[in-house]
Parts: sequence; C-alpha cells; structure tokens
Amino acid sequence: MEFSSKLLERAVNEVSQLPGIGRRTALRLVLHLLKQPKEQTVGLSDALKTMREAIKFCKSCHNISDLELCEICSNPNRKEDVICVVEDVRDVMAIENTASHKGLYHVLGGKISPMDGIGPHDLNVTTLVEKVKEGKVKELIFALSSTMEGDTTNFYIFKQIQGYKVQTSTIARGISVGDELEYADEITLGRSIINRIPFESSLKL
Amino acid sequence: MEFSSKLLERAVNEVSQLPGIGRRTALRLVLHLLKQPKEQTVGLSDALKTMREAIKFCKSCHNISDLELCEICSNPNRKEDVICVVEDVRDVMAIENTASHKGLYHVLGGKISPMDGIGPHDLNVTTLVEKVKEGKVKELIFALSSTMEGDTTNFYIFKQIQGYKVQTSTIARGISVGDELEYADEITLGRSIINRIPFESSLKL
Repeated sequence: MEFSSKLLERAVNEVSQLPGIGRRTALRLVLHLLKQPKEQTVGLSDALKTMREAIKFCKSCHNISDLELCEICSNPNRKEDVICVVEDVRDVMAIENTASHKGLYHVLGGKISPMDGIGPHDLNVTTLVEKVKEGKVKELIFALSSTMEGDTTNFYIFKQIQGYKVQTSTIARGISVGDELEYADEITLGRSIINRIPFESSLKL
Repeated sequence: MEFSSKLLERAVNEVSQLPGIGRRTALRLVLHLLKQPKEQTVGLSDALKTMREAIKFCKSCHNISDLELCEICSNPNRKEDVICVVEDVRDVMAIENTASHKGLYHVLGGKISPMDGIGPHDLNVTTLVEKVKEGKVKELIFALSSTMEGDTTNFYIFKQIQGYKVQTSTIARGISVGDELEYADEITLGRSIINRIPFESSLKL
C-alpha cells in the first residue's frame, strides 16, 4: 500500500497494530476520523494516552481501578473470604452483571500459556497465594475459561495452595440455558450428566 | 456495561465511536493496549492527533498530501489533460496500484447522497468544473462506484460541464477477470454484452 502522505501512513501503521485490525480497516478508520470534526480525534487520542499513563490497578485484586482499592474490594457488604479467580477485567464485568457473586475477585491478568511465552510469574499468582497463606480465604472459586490454558492455570494455583485450609471450587460446566441437547458437544453433555445436581436445588434458581 | 474506572470508560467510549467498532470490541482493544508497553499507546495517540491536525490536501486534486501540490499533480510525466474523478483517497491508491492511469485525479470527497444529507456543495465539485471551464481538460474519466449515489454524482457533474469541450467516459462495468459467467448478476452480464469491445483490443491487454 503506497500512501500519498507520511502522516497518513504513520497513523495507519499505528492503528493496524491493534489486534484484529488490518491495514485496510486501519485506513478506513483513519479516513473516517479525517471526515469528522477535529475534536473527535483529539478526544480519542487524549483518552487513550491519559488512560495508559494514569490507569491504576487495585492493590488487592488487580482489577482496573481509579482508587488504591477498587470499589468491590472496599465494599463492606461483600464477603471477604470468598474469592473468585478470573483471567481479566472483562470477566469481572461479566460476573458482576449476573449479580451472583457476593465475594471479592482476584484478576490474574492472563492464563499460563507456554505457547505464548506466558508463565506463572507473568500472572498475579503470588499475591493470591499469599492471601490464602494468611488464612483469610475460606473459598476460592476458579472462573477461568474451559481451555487447556485455563485448566493448567487452575491446576497450578491448586498445587500452590495445597496444604492450606481453603475450599476450592470451579464454576459449573454444562448445557447453556435455552440450548437444545442435540446440538451440545459431547464433552459438555457428558460433564453435565456426571456433575448433575439435585433437582430441588435447580428449583431455587 | 459498568466500568471500574472512569479512565477506562472514557477510552472505551471514544474508541467505540469508530465505525464498525462496538463497545465490546472497544474494550478488547483498550485492554490490549494496557498489556502492551506504554510507548505503543503514546505512539498511536500521537500519530492520530498529529495526522488530524497537520494533514493537508493537494490544492489541485484534493488528495491527501504533505505538500501543497501532491506527488501525482506535480509529476511532469503525467498527462495533465486526463482527469480521473474518484470518490476518495482509497480509490486513488487502488487505481495507482493498477498503473493503468497516466493522467491526474480529482478527489470528490464523497458521493451525492440525499439520504445521508450530502449534497453537491459538500463535495469538491466546483474546482473540477472550473478546471473544465478553463479548457485544460481533454477527458474526464468517471470512476465512482456503480451505485445509485455514484450514478447521481456522475450525472450531476456531467450536467455541470455540458456545453464545454471535454470528452467524458466511465470505467467499464463487466464480468470480473477470473469470474464464472453463471455466477454473475444479470445487470452486469447484460451490460457486458451491450458494451462489448472488439476482440482484437482485448488481445492487447
């Protein structure tokens, strides 16, 4: 792609570094910005820069937060001794939307993935293990995605906290609400039968 | 979507104003930037801002350019009296890639589209008509997309320059090279028969 302007080329190069955005899409986005009032580009540019430079992470759960301690960690109504372990901020938002978790979170910041060069020391595991060692945690809920990497991460943390008095659980895998049985994959369907729950407890939901 | 940080929320809001990017994608992009070195976000932010503030358009053809007169317009080897009329900068790049056009361009900056509130006065039509009136142009090649809006724009310009001595042409519509006839739409196939060319001239390409 040959550009008639170095400024345009630089902008397209930068935008196309974002995941899932190729050079054609980047050009489309940049030309769109050129047709909009200058304020939009300045606003976008400032918002990104300010965010990247000023963003803070909760010192306890590593969630993104404007305060030292995030709103969830500093909320006295939440159960301090139940911690839900998640991969990233989006998972916190997704679980918060369900209003089903009354405890706190711990954001790992990723999953163990040797293929991508991400080991346990790139994640916020140590602080989690410390919380357990201090005896403050009654239950850890593993809420990582059900992939090889997620399972590896779960198992690594599980090994680290073995011997300490803490209950561990993982979120239920099963048939999605509203799904037809015949279209479910075999592993999920198999697990949903093995991990069946008493019928009465399903009535309470 | 509830955010744990105002900075994050502002960044997501700004990014999701880009066309084709919803709030979920915006959040994914912003979280990606947070995982990358600070320099990437600063680079992206600066590139966009600098581009928007400093970009210039060629005073003759309205193409994006870092100079007063773009590289194409100032190239003495190009035919000054053949002007290809296109919608935007991407079309210039696409046609330049084919190396089939030896003349200059005129970038309209859009198409007449009453549905989107774009009239002829929002486009760079006046400067084009002036070029024709000055008698400098031998041929105008309309290379707008083959839509209702493109055809309307072609026709509007055609009416404006009627009476002046200038040849007009539009790019050929027909079956794409490599396409099977049976899958072509009827209008394109019909036009390709009506606008057939002497067999010998197809041999020269």
